[in-house]
Amino acid sequence: MTDRSSSVPPLAVEAGFFRGRRIAELQQAMAGGGLTAEDLVRHAGAAIERLNPQLNAFVHVDIGAALATARERDAERAQGKARGPLHGIPVAIKDNVDTADMPTTMGAAHFLGHRPAADARCVALLREAGAIIVGKTLTHEFAYGPTGDRSVQGAARNPWRASQITGGSSAGSAGAVASGMVPVALGTDTGGSVRVPSALCGLVGFKPTHGRVSDAGVFPLSPSLEDPGVLAGCVEDAQLFMQALSAGAMAPAAASGTDGPRVAWVANAPFAIDTAAVTARVRAAAQRLAGGPLRDAPEVTRHARALQAALGAIQRAEAYEVHAERIEDQPEKFDPEVLERLRASRGVLGWEYVRALKERARLQAEFARLFQEVDVLALPTVAITAPALQQRSVAGPGSAGVRETLLGLTNPWNVLGLPAISLPAGWVDGLPVGLQLVAAAGADEALLALAASRWQPPRE
Amino acid sequence: MTDRSSSVPPLAVEAGFFRGRRIAELQQAMAGGGLTAEDLVRHAGAAIERLNPQLNAFVHVDIGAALATARERDAERAQGKARGPLHGIPVAIKDNVDTADMPTTMGAAHFLGHRPAADARCVALLREAGAIIVGKTLTHEFAYGPTGDRSVQGAARNPWRASQITGGSSAGSAGAVASGMVPVALGTDTGGSVRVPSALCGLVGFKPTHGRVSDAGVFPLSPSLEDPGVLAGCVEDAQLFMQALSAGAMAPAAASGTDGPRVAWVANAPFAIDTAAVTARVRAAAQRLAGGPLRDAPEVTRHARALQAALGAIQRAEAYEVHAERIEDQPEKFDPEVLERLRASRGVLGWEYVRALKERARLQAEFARLFQEVDVLALPTVAITAPALQQRSVAGPGSAGVRETLLGLTNPWNVLGLPAISLPAGWVDGLPVGLQLVAAAGADEALLALAASRWQPPRE
Repeated sequence: MTDRSSSVPPLAVEAGFFRGRRIAELQQAMAGGGLTAEDLVRHAGAAIERLNPQLNAFVHVDIGAALATARERDAERAQGKARGPLHGIPVAIKDNVDTADMPTTMGAAHFLGHRPAADARCVALLREAGAIIVGKTLTHEFAYGPTGDRSVQGAARNPWRASQITGGSSAGSAGAVASGMVPVALGTDTGGSVRVPSALCGLVGFKPTHGRVSDAGVFPLSPSLEDPGVLAGCVEDAQLFMQALSAGAMAPAAASGTDGPRVAWVANAPFAIDTAAVTARVRAAAQRLAGGPLRDAPEVTRHARALQAALGAIQRAEAYEVHAERIEDQPEKFDPEVLERLRASRGVLGWEYVRALKERARLQAEFARLFQEVDVLALPTVAITAPALQQRSVAGPGSAGVRETLLGLTNPWNVLGLPAISLPAGWVDGLPVGLQLVAAAGADEALLALAASRWQPPRE
Repeated sequence: MTDRSSSVPPLAVEAGFFRGRRIAELQQAMAGGGLTAEDLVRHAGAAIERLNPQLNAFVHVDIGAALATARERDAERAQGKARGPLHGIPVAIKDNVDTADMPTTMGAAHFLGHRPAADARCVALLREAGAIIVGKTLTHEFAYGPTGDRSVQGAARNPWRASQITGGSSAGSAGAVASGMVPVALGTDTGGSVRVPSALCGLVGFKPTHGRVSDAGVFPLSPSLEDPGVLAGCVEDAQLFMQALSAGAMAPAAASGTDGPRVAWVANAPFAIDTAAVTARVRAAAQRLAGGPLRDAPEVTRHARALQAALGAIQRAEAYEVHAERIEDQPEKFDPEVLERLRASRGVLGWEYVRALKERARLQAEFARLFQEVDVLALPTVAITAPALQQRSVAGPGSAGVRETLLGLTNPWNVLGLPAISLPAGWVDGLPVGLQLVAAAGADEALLALAASRWQPPRE
């Protein structure tokens, strides 16, 4: 007879120091003097040295600089001057976010060796909160892909099974946290780029309400859909990270009310294919979280077509605008798949983009009404487990594309600008699956608090 | 020997009651009991009956309803309850603005007989301020043209010379006020549609900062460029009207400072052709208003190409979006010229529209800096006097198009969302020309106050 915890499948790698360790626990140890920020950076450096060759999560590491910073943080702490919730905590930064002291490549040959003049606003905020940046993590080229296996630095590999993708585009951030190289990492999410790799790697991934976190210094994919977010080992770590990213505006909150939350279940169709084993696992996790039966949300399904149409026009027009001159002048430097996708984005007409913005406003009003009746929508983050590197179609009836399948359940919430979180919901065939919760615009703290108070780590 | 005033050329029609009468003067007479709102509506009715067959300014008139309203306003006044600055004043409404008690056709066959369910917000505000709506004025079809000679109701004619256009698209509003049928009228301005006809008809025309007046219930041409505005006989009347339109937010202000305003002259080129006689007349008016030498503004010229590029993409994409289904389903109902222009608007690409929005934001920041150095930019409102009905090219070297020439000096300020006013600057060959002043975003009251304190009606 096996006990419940033994049914958790093993990682494919020997986990780094930070796997299973919470930031609060690290802070407590540092406060007690039993651990220093320098220790933490050394642990990060050791884990990266050992694991990164297998996982390709980091594309740039500077442990030397991080150690110097760690000693500063330790000296500050010794003087009773802790900067904030991440004081002394090693973090990783997705490589489409500007760092003044490290290259920022966007995963693209066009930017190899590129050194930004200044930190992105969110990087500056992390440093102000005491975080120590140990390196930059692999992004799908220009963040334009959910697989994380196309970049000038190659493919990131899933710590649960190295033959599989991490998901993307915040691919390296997911690999780094899931394998325990760092406790927490910055990602960006335009259609699911934080939540998808979080789900496929068994992490907590949170994308805030559009605009609540500054995107200054983040290389744009589709600015009106995009937000910085966090990949973490647990909800509490994500809360601390978001507190830092929002300059304290998103302080961890207590869940409101004593009743169970009003959770409405959203069917996969027509957003994505339905994989019975994944859906069953995720739905069970949603029921545990709700503490009772799930409501239905047929109105969400009714808006699926309009959401997808608006998303397509907005993302494609904005993405092409970012790259128009590069596509003209340096097409050969793109990954062929990314280039093809970008070229196909050129054809969106101006009036279709304008119409999409109007549709988005209409849909936002519809969903604002829906969120008067429910607290969160629940659905799988991704309808499948992590596919293999370079796999581009999903086997089985329907033969869906991998890209559409990975993004179909996450990108509707980017169109609407809603906060959304992916929570580890268990495993299917030894690979993690995620439960996604979506809340009303502006309800970021409440969503995080709900997840913190009601989510339990999966055991089987 | 002729005295100065006798050099003012005559109108081509026998002017209506309101020509040369200020609202303040009418209010004073009504307050003194020597005049009633009912009298004013009868005067309006008589002038419309006599002049409208020659000018085609009104497309719908309801003097009966206006008389009933006038009697209500008179009764209120008798009880000491004047509603606001336009209490008892007859006004005209451009026919692309919803009125619950009158048809609203947009000048288009598609909307013949169309009855909106509710008043536009700005119509409601005018009524709340006591205005009496006597009728709806001709708009260029769907407001998509600056000539005012293409609509399902035909062409509006210029009171100064009936063979010439009023300019548009607020064509009938200009004819109605310039001929004295009403003292003041509502227009809308997307590229010059208030200011162009004001200039060509010898009126004051004011377009506010984008977004300061509600466009709810205004049929859109290109919403991000468009604002309701006023056509009036003098600046003070325009101030009272804007006070009403902004629900009191734009109360008439005193000009600040005792020094002369810092006025920078903007050269026509490369925005439009330059007609020496018009430019000389307008520049002289600007010098009188400045009370001293004019500054140069070469930086404005430097941004001309970027302004025009942004304008083209924004206006065309937004205009096509408004009409996409109509163009598909009912093309035969459009005026051929308007249809051709709309069809040519389809080709703007989504990324070009996104780029144009970014460019607009960049240019707005540039102009915000410029307006730290100057109070107003000055230039002709229109580079030429009113062309003949259906004329489509301007004679002389360069052979410019009428449309481009009419809009070239006004539409840059719509891209930037800046407040702008056209002031009567004199006559060239017996037709009026306008001086345009442009101010910083949000400086609406200051611009109106400057015009009120420093502008003198032209005498030659």
